[in-house]
Amino acid sequence: MPAALEFWFEFASTYSYPAAFAVEEAARERGVEVKWRSFLLGPIFAAQGWNDSPFNIYPAKGKYMWRDLARICAAQGLALNHPSQFPRGSMLAARIACRYANETWAGAFVRRIYEANFVDDLDIASPFVVGQILSTLGQVPAEIMKSAQSQETKDAFRAQNDRAIAAGLIGAPSYVVDGEVFWGGDRLDAALDWACGKRIPA
Amino acid sequence: MPAALEFWFEFASTYSYPAAFAVEEAARERGVEVKWRSFLLGPIFAAQGWNDSPFNIYPAKGKYMWRDLARICAAQGLALNHPSQFPRGSMLAARIACRYANETWAGAFVRRIYEANFVDDLDIASPFVVGQILSTLGQVPAEIMKSAQSQETKDAFRAQNDRAIAAGLIGAPSYVVDGEVFWGGDRLDAALDWACGKRIPA
Repeated sequence: MPAALEFWFEFASTYSYPAAFAVEEAARERGVEVKWRSFLLGPIFAAQGWNDSPFNIYPAKGKYMWRDLARICAAQGLALNHPSQFPRGSMLAARIACRYANETWAGAFVRRIYEANFVDDLDIASPFVVGQILSTLGQVPAEIMKSAQSQETKDAFRAQNDRAIAAGLIGAPSYVVDGEVFWGGDRLDAALDWACGKRIPA
Repeated sequence: MPAALEFWFEFASTYSYPAAFAVEEAARERGVEVKWRSFLLGPIFAAQGWNDSPFNIYPAKGKYMWRDLARICAAQGLALNHPSQFPRGSMLAARIACRYANETWAGAFVRRIYEANFVDDLDIASPFVVGQILSTLGQVPAEIMKSAQSQETKDAFRAQNDRAIAAGLIGAPSYVVDGEVFWGGDRLDAALDWACGKRIPA
């Protein structure tokens, strides 16, 4: 039995967008289960002394990233429109993704939020935008919003972020397999190899 | 005819080590010519406000990198010993690599310098260490050292570093094909696709 692959993503993260569209199919081909793990980069960046995305703080990195992202999206056949606001507040959507990670619609929800942010240029921090996406997935927005704002969900999401830090995550997307961290969308195959037992002693 | 692939590397850069061992064979399989392009990350990092490797400035990034590097080296069958000094001064070796980039022994020189740094834990800033490597390659160290310190070579290397900045390089290794930049060893296939005309409009 392959080990499960935890897909750690941040809805504000650019590289997480194409990765979120690739992970399920690639994992299915290898017989690997995907576990959706939303988290926030804000606290992790703050620990490095950054109060903004490093792609904004370091313009040369940002310029390269947007070009690189365009190539990656084009290669995957994904649309991309530079959002008018970057990064966008991801707390609401991330809490929902945490609370409902095991639902059958979890993957579709994740992908629709990314499209809203990076294709439709919508404010994913808006309950209205998130609610509309939930509706299209056949869910009742009011119920889910209420649950997402509950103390129980807030605590669970905080605990999930603490696990991200404890695991040593430094960026998104990251794949974690049995505690082994792979950072960056292009490490998906390496993470799937690890899940399937191809573990080269290092 | 495929376009040439410029391999931009920094001898102090950890990820450049396995990339330097992979690039020639992968390029040969695709019929792509490799151009060796040594440069210094120091000025590029300084422009970001960093006076040291970001892997030292940000310990969480450093911890991940060393683990990731160990996996990559193991997968390529390369030895790796954490050097007792990081980063090491790469100016001398980089100037030689710039001056003699078109010699038949250029690739072997590059790889031996990386082994000295990341396997044998030798100080690659030392003319003695570099000279020994040149000797094993059948070269006359005194002649090459003299040429490497000439004003002509200094100017040529400075111009090469200016081209790195103008190209938008933000880290090493980077691959450049017809001005298109790919950063990171794991982007080699994408860069070779680009060289072979597989250019998805982005």
